[in-house]
Amino acid sequence: MEKFELTILGCGSALPTTRHFATSQVLNIREKLYMIDCGEGCQLQLRRAKLKFSRLNHVFISHLHGDHCFGLIGLISTFGLLGRTSTLFVHAPAAFEPVLQSQLDFFCKGLDFRVEFRPVDTTRHALIYEDRSVSVYTLPLRHRIECCGFLFKEKATLPHIRRDMIDFYRIPVCEINNIKNGKDWVTEEGITVANHRLTTPPEPQRSFAYCSDTCYLPELSNYVNEVDLLFHEATFLHEDLKRAQETFHTTALQAATLARDSKVKKLCIGHFSARYEDESLLLKEAKSIFKQTILAHENLTIKI
Amino acid sequence: MEKFELTILGCGSALPTTRHFATSQVLNIREKLYMIDCGEGCQLQLRRAKLKFSRLNHVFISHLHGDHCFGLIGLISTFGLLGRTSTLFVHAPAAFEPVLQSQLDFFCKGLDFRVEFRPVDTTRHALIYEDRSVSVYTLPLRHRIECCGFLFKEKATLPHIRRDMIDFYRIPVCEINNIKNGKDWVTEEGITVANHRLTTPPEPQRSFAYCSDTCYLPELSNYVNEVDLLFHEATFLHEDLKRAQETFHTTALQAATLARDSKVKKLCIGHFSARYEDESLLLKEAKSIFKQTILAHENLTIKI
Repeated sequence: MEKFELTILGCGSALPTTRHFATSQVLNIREKLYMIDCGEGCQLQLRRAKLKFSRLNHVFISHLHGDHCFGLIGLISTFGLLGRTSTLFVHAPAAFEPVLQSQLDFFCKGLDFRVEFRPVDTTRHALIYEDRSVSVYTLPLRHRIECCGFLFKEKATLPHIRRDMIDFYRIPVCEINNIKNGKDWVTEEGITVANHRLTTPPEPQRSFAYCSDTCYLPELSNYVNEVDLLFHEATFLHEDLKRAQETFHTTALQAATLARDSKVKKLCIGHFSARYEDESLLLKEAKSIFKQTILAHENLTIKI
Repeated sequence: MEKFELTILGCGSALPTTRHFATSQVLNIREKLYMIDCGEGCQLQLRRAKLKFSRLNHVFISHLHGDHCFGLIGLISTFGLLGRTSTLFVHAPAAFEPVLQSQLDFFCKGLDFRVEFRPVDTTRHALIYEDRSVSVYTLPLRHRIECCGFLFKEKATLPHIRRDMIDFYRIPVCEINNIKNGKDWVTEEGITVANHRLTTPPEPQRSFAYCSDTCYLPELSNYVNEVDLLFHEATFLHEDLKRAQETFHTTALQAATLARDSKVKKLCIGHFSARYEDESLLLKEAKSIFKQTILAHENLTIKI
């Protein structure tokens, strides 16, 4: 099965702790890397995760609080030092463009690659990017400032060839690609062998949804329904619900409720408030509602 | 003896490695913290070093390469979240002010404290700051962009009271402060006891010099002569002298030569190029010239 895995680079929230880096994740789809948020230190964590800088061409930024984007300028500077030439695409709320540009103008003169800014409308659910491997959709969230999550849907792969049938009908190698792409086979005797007899179906398309930062939004179910992995912020314990509501964050119990109601396969919670030294309490709370929950931690890689 | 100690928060150079954070140090003088350079991740490292954010009122920035200043905006944001009210002074080359200001305007609206910018002339040796504990001087360096080091000279402390003499002459407690400040004592019989008989001299004034980034500058000896601790960059081994010269950096051998010629008490080398997995080679090279050399590493604290 082709690679589709998430690596957590940082899963703390705004205040620094000795336990966490600021928010950043990387989704590896078929050896192409998609970064989601880029808090301070993300380039260091990318190095520690042994992920190749050259494979990263897209950064998606959920919102413009510093703990989700202060690491971008350092990452871009490093790309420059490493001699990068391919365009880097930054998908972020439009207000970020002039801020980023003024930093690039000052710190990154003479880069050998372009930084191409793609403004993201955080208010609607829409396809914002696609390539041969993946489609990326926005997920409107509700936070203190404009914010959206991202849904990554793997593109279909081609069906698998049934080697036994190819041998049986003595189908030449040059025809294999056509058959993978859906063609039937006609024997010398003029008998048509239907494509589905020559192939087995491809693996199901996998999906990952990232929802941070946001208050509890039950209507997200419409978008994250049955995803393979949901990353959802769980900044607070439910006993601190009032604080969660004031700051437009989610409790572990709420995140798990969304996961359960959305019938997702697995939930990963993160963006932990600095106040909890023992984060297993957050996990315990979430698991009481939705068993397939795991705690994010730095350098955790989850195969999807 | 009152506190005068240096903590290394990061001692890598521009490219991220799994071994180091970008450049940042904190000098603790009598529980006041002075940050020197503030590379990405300095706030995280400050937390790890268990240094109190509220004790930090001054940041000195040597030059405007990202690995020496990208951590400042995150630090300031965090100060805001922590409810800081006292002014933060940023001493840096003048060109930094508009860049910093545009970031503050965007990310740090409504701070309850002021960020006061103090432009630094990197081209001359001058007193740029003093308080009751320390005087700070610039050290002109030579790098690819304008750059200066910093010399921290401890202010004199008061002499120590000789308890035995105080008892002998039955000097009342209310007079102690006057004697500490130099007054003689006159007995009931009218005999003058000279101040130097009632006190012992204070500890000698300590000094710390920070020199990074720069090519080898023998004339720095004039300024760092006999300092207690010299931190000097040693980005390269001497076998890579050509590369050091091209990039305006120093080799370990050159840093040690400067330390020896300046008769400093101790040398700490850092700002290691990412190319050296085994940094003990840098130490060995420096020690061959100047024995009292140590290697910087994250969270190292050096009592001066």
